[in-house]
Amino acid sequence: MAEKPARGLADVVAASTAISDIDGRAGRLSYRGYDIGQLAAAATFEEVAFLLQRGTPPTAGELAGFRAELAAGRALGPLAAASVPAVSSGQPPMAALRSLVSLASADDEDAGSNEPAANQRKAARLTAQQPVLVAAFHGVRTGSPVPVPEPEADLGLAANFLLQVTGRRPAPRAAEIFDTCLVLHADHTMNASTFAARVCAATLSDMHSAVVAALGTLKGPLHGGANEQVMRSLEEIRHSGGDPVEAVSDQVSARLRSGDKIMGFGHRVYKAEDPRATILRKLSGELAATAADDTYYRMSLRMDEVVRAEKGLYPNVDFYAATVYHYLGIPTDLFTPVFSVSRMAGWTAHIMEQHADNRLIRPDSEYIGETGLTWPAK
Amino acid sequence: MAEKPARGLADVVAASTAISDIDGRAGRLSYRGYDIGQLAAAATFEEVAFLLQRGTPPTAGELAGFRAELAAGRALGPLAAASVPAVSSGQPPMAALRSLVSLASADDEDAGSNEPAANQRKAARLTAQQPVLVAAFHGVRTGSPVPVPEPEADLGLAANFLLQVTGRRPAPRAAEIFDTCLVLHADHTMNASTFAARVCAATLSDMHSAVVAALGTLKGPLHGGANEQVMRSLEEIRHSGGDPVEAVSDQVSARLRSGDKIMGFGHRVYKAEDPRATILRKLSGELAATAADDTYYRMSLRMDEVVRAEKGLYPNVDFYAATVYHYLGIPTDLFTPVFSVSRMAGWTAHIMEQHADNRLIRPDSEYIGETGLTWPAK
Repeated sequence: MAEKPARGLADVVAASTAISDIDGRAGRLSYRGYDIGQLAAAATFEEVAFLLQRGTPPTAGELAGFRAELAAGRALGPLAAASVPAVSSGQPPMAALRSLVSLASADDEDAGSNEPAANQRKAARLTAQQPVLVAAFHGVRTGSPVPVPEPEADLGLAANFLLQVTGRRPAPRAAEIFDTCLVLHADHTMNASTFAARVCAATLSDMHSAVVAALGTLKGPLHGGANEQVMRSLEEIRHSGGDPVEAVSDQVSARLRSGDKIMGFGHRVYKAEDPRATILRKLSGELAATAADDTYYRMSLRMDEVVRAEKGLYPNVDFYAATVYHYLGIPTDLFTPVFSVSRMAGWTAHIMEQHADNRLIRPDSEYIGETGLTWPAK
Repeated sequence: MAEKPARGLADVVAASTAISDIDGRAGRLSYRGYDIGQLAAAATFEEVAFLLQRGTPPTAGELAGFRAELAAGRALGPLAAASVPAVSSGQPPMAALRSLVSLASADDEDAGSNEPAANQRKAARLTAQQPVLVAAFHGVRTGSPVPVPEPEADLGLAANFLLQVTGRRPAPRAAEIFDTCLVLHADHTMNASTFAARVCAATLSDMHSAVVAALGTLKGPLHGGANEQVMRSLEEIRHSGGDPVEAVSDQVSARLRSGDKIMGFGHRVYKAEDPRATILRKLSGELAATAADDTYYRMSLRMDEVVRAEKGLYPNVDFYAATVYHYLGIPTDLFTPVFSVSRMAGWTAHIMEQHADNRLIRPDSEYIGETGLTWPAK
């Protein structure tokens, strides 16, 4: 192959999709034609999951049915439930989740079918189970026997997740803010994990296989790992001594001068501010205003200013998500798992779209090695 | 996004690689500059795995060291070993293998490191363990307690796999032929599973995550599932009554006229015969000549003739692999797992190549849905 590769497939249009759209110049994101700002203000995560997976906003009756389907689907099956302790113990969260979701296919009677109705049922179950798996993983390391509270029937997916992870029923506004975070992260066109899921699904492999591929891909520090690294970076600067906000100015400037990348800034697709970052900045400020300590929020604002002034880069979705999750009491190493709780809605929608109009995804490569060699004689 | 997509990324050059090269017009395949014909004739699978993973043919000393590393690495760790019965029982082989390899990361002390030396060690262990996992899976359904024979120190990976799956020490020539099959399947540029592994690794996720993505992708019937479908199709025609070879002519012609695809023929990249098919045809003939029943081989030759004459399509690697595996006594539903035993060498090589010169793989998409919608008021 003589052609030069499109490294990282930047600007290569790999698929047609009706699920989400980004206008990188204008800084706009929409799901199935609805602007993310509207959805963040007016829709719940359950409504957005329905929209992504089934194509239209749910009617009141459809929403009630979908919520009932999610509630029924969130109970782990026997193999996944039995495997939680051994699989979680001492493991990185995303490695454990990759295994648990893979194992959950054995519990799913629809696992082997790519039929649209079976895929819709699996998409609902995978979406319902992901927060329960994250909470169960966290439960293993925080107590024994697993002290995860049962989900409560009157709470939505977001509130139940906070209940299960923090052990306390969340304040209504905290649950609303977390629900908005899930709405904001639910889909984002051909991000790496979604693309991995589509490459897998395009061999007509099954939904669990494709979601497991996505989870392993999200695990990488250049993708899902970024929000966690933002928080670790804030923690590190804060504990380096002196006034934390001034320390941000000094240390971030120094890092930028030495050519380091600052996590949580810049995005291959957006040339303006990521609209999700705009919303998350406000939510982080709101939580900080009533928190005992607003230092991390003030540090974030300063970091945003410094990086923008010195490099012209905007914060991306990961940047303010970090402090929002922190103020909601979510442990830092669960930030990527939280991303997976939300993105499950989008991954499953993309897998169904791929199955519905499929072609095997099999690119070419450019060969840059040696040629015409002779295998050494014995 | 206004641009039209490159559907399936056909003819899009997605990466540079020095691992393998295909000349589709000439019908040539090479690994790191060595023609596949040379390797099939002169190299063992262990030598090829070393070549792919470490870049050069092993010296005698390096080969001895690598064989010792594989022998030491093939023992399953505690979580994978303990999980085999529950994960295998009643499950499709590739679903079980996806879970078992995911679980094996918990047993691997290098799981969290992408350092070159750690990746090389993991690549060797994953290559050594894959045949053991397949045999252990098969052992669960054929007996209890698991009656899989221990690998023998004087046998290579191919012979030990046949020993563990069939329960008998293979004849030397059978082991050689199977070893050649593993050589032929070890790598094939940007096939879908390898590409999925690279998309995953490009977020700087770890080798187990990327291999698990590849396993789930290989599971699909348009990729790894093809060899199994070839065998099922031969079985179906044979049991439909009449002379099996004549039945092939009649049924394949009828299927082609009604527009059906015949599995095992044609390939996106090859415009001439796949060189692996040429070699596998000979091996299938050799095994058939000494088998009690050569019907499936004669049926395959006829199918090859009919499809070539009527559609101008050549057999691909899956077509004659099916009868070779059949004559070697490998159960039909393990054909795709056998593919994974071999391709593990290539997947791990590609993951290391991706990590060594990485860029996030994040394509664009074309949006084809509705725009500017208003979320329904409550």
